[in-house]
Formats: sequence, structure tokens, C-alpha cells
Amino acid sequence: MALQRIPARTAVAVRVARGERVRVVNTHGQQVVDTWAFVDPAAEWMSMEHSRLHMGRVNPRVGDTFVTNRRRPVLTLIEDTSGGVHDTLLAACDIYRYELLGAAGHDNCTDNLHAALGELGLRAPLTPSPLNLFENAPPAADGTIVIAPPVSTPGSHVALRAELDLVIVFSACPQDMAATNGPGPRDAHFERLA
Amino acid sequence: MALQRIPARTAVAVRVARGERVRVVNTHGQQVVDTWAFVDPAAEWMSMEHSRLHMGRVNPRVGDTFVTNRRRPVLTLIEDTSGGVHDTLLAACDIYRYELLGAAGHDNCTDNLHAALGELGLRAPLTPSPLNLFENAPPAADGTIVIAPPVSTPGSHVALRAELDLVIVFSACPQDMAATNGPGPRDAHFERLA
Repeated sequence: MALQRIPARTAVAVRVARGERVRVVNTHGQQVVDTWAFVDPAAEWMSMEHSRLHMGRVNPRVGDTFVTNRRRPVLTLIEDTSGGVHDTLLAACDIYRYELLGAAGHDNCTDNLHAALGELGLRAPLTPSPLNLFENAPPAADGTIVIAPPVSTPGSHVALRAELDLVIVFSACPQDMAATNGPGPRDAHFERLA
Repeated sequence: MALQRIPARTAVAVRVARGERVRVVNTHGQQVVDTWAFVDPAAEWMSMEHSRLHMGRVNPRVGDTFVTNRRRPVLTLIEDTSGGVHDTLLAACDIYRYELLGAAGHDNCTDNLHAALGELGLRAPLTPSPLNLFENAPPAADGTIVIAPPVSTPGSHVALRAELDLVIVFSACPQDMAATNGPGPRDAHFERLA
């Protein structure tokens, strides 16, 4: 099926049915894609803090399943050609992050999320901690976290299977003041798999 | 000042003014204390996913400051005689966790949190990921997480300084079906420091 664009610095929300599979393509190779999944934007969503216990690790591997804040399976990582480095530890960027960096009003994944949900007529009362696909910030042996450029390469991808009927939101992170997105924010793409 | 009891399996909410210091005592040595801090229960609270980036690590050390979901300093860890092992990665236990363990209706830190806030006439629309004081579940070098009994000893403590006017909630975790609390749920205590 056709690739759909996640324009640089913006987010796209898409409805995905249980059992459907979605491929997220790191088109230019170093673009982080903040990812959320909502069963009900008012009450149940993919939760990193619940998923880490369920998976038994901080960094998902192929075969691992994320769960919601009600501990129900929600997304399974079924393919990964990106090098397998993703982040579950860090909040989405937001106006407060950029204010601290001296860039008030900067585009950010948190506002992107809520704008994308709004385009579907949906509203979430909070911003869950996202699955930061391709983000390279694994804790070192002493627990230290440093954000480095992604290890993923152009055209590499992950594929996710929906375990419930969902709204998934992908934000091509607009961070251009840290190493998060390597040389800078670019488009990413996704496609539904047949 | 006088020690106040956090009865085993329950939570206590307390108002703390900016600049005040609170000591949390692991009275019996192996009791995890799920800890939350709210500036405004409807809008601003201590956030582990924001704090990990701010601190630059997953496990807080003396001198580290936690921040809110608006990235404002909220609590600083100013003393720690417990061995320094605390968890910022795992969700509070909840009815869903115990249902999966075959114990529907079990006491849990999530319900404890909301009950304790209710006793102050407050309501939070969500359950932030807690600071799990004394919880021993650091990620291994490969990212694996296993919950082991606390390394803390009887009477060891941490002290926290409030950086804003807060409601702090301490829950003496009722988990008795995993290694979380060592030999089992016990009381903990806290005191305001002069």
C-alpha cells in the first residue's frame, strides 16, 4: 500500500484496526518518530511505564508487546531493520523544553500530538510518555542518559501490529537544537501493510 | 519533628511548602515507597519522563532535582543513606497488575494515591509514573529489568527538598506477590525536617 508522509516537524494521526500492521520508515535515516497509541484518548493509551515492566526491559526488541495503562497488549514490534535502538525513557519535546533552550514557540512533538488528534476530532487530557522510535538514548551501565544521533539508516524501518483498535500518532520530531535527529528534522513515512 | 506513619499497604498525602525538607524513613528496611508530587493535581506534577532528561540519568543521586511535566524543578534529593537504589522506570501497581497476577481486588498504589488525594479534597485526572523510592529494579547493561528486593537497610532514609508548594503522596507499596518489598509490605515513616 502507498507510503504516507509524516512531514518534518509535524504529526499525523491514523486509525488502525486490531490486527493491522503498520510500517514506519526512517526515510532519511536519522529522524526520530515520537509514537503514541490510544484505545480511548480519554482513558486508555499505550504506556511506557507499564510496558517496561511487561517487556522486562527498557528498549523493545522484535516480538515485544507494549501495553496500555490498563496493562492490555496494544502494539507489538514485529520487524526492525533500524538497528534496534529506540527510546522509552524520555518525554516528548514541548514548549517548556524549548523555552529552556531559548527557543520559545518552537515546534514540538507535544503540540503536534494534540493537533493531530484534533484533526480526527479527538482530545486527550494528557500527553503520555511516547515511544520514541529510532531515538538513540539508551542508559549507560551507570544509568547515565545522553541523546546521540540515531543509528538507523535511510530507508530502514520498524513494523508494528495493532493488538486493539487504535488511533496511532506519529510525530516527526522537530528537535533541531540537540543531536536527537542527527543533521536535522526531515520527513518520515508510514504505510499499512497488506 | 515527629515521625509520621505511612501504614503498610496505604498512602498518605501531605502539603509541603517550598523550601521544606521531608525525610522518608525505610523503617523496616525493604519497603518501597511510591512517591508523587503535585503542584496542581489537575495540571502539573512531578514527571519521571521529564526528570530523566533533566537529571541525565535513570536513577537519581544526591543533588539531583526532579522536574514537573512543565519542566520546573519540583523536588531535590538532598540526602540518601539507603544505598542509592531507586526506580523511576516502572508504573505504580494497580488493579490491572494484580488481576494479571490472579489477585483481583488487591490493594495497590494507584488506588492508594487517589484515596490519599481525596482525603485532602483533591482529585488527579491521571496517575503519573511515580518515583519508587528504595525500589531495586535498575536496568542491566542490556536494558533488562528485574525487580529484586531493596538494598536499603532498616532506618535508612532519603531526604527531599520541595522546590515549589506541593502535595506529596507516599504509598507504602502493598506488593506481596513479587520481590518488590522483600519479605513483605511493612510500614514506613516520614518527617518534616526543621
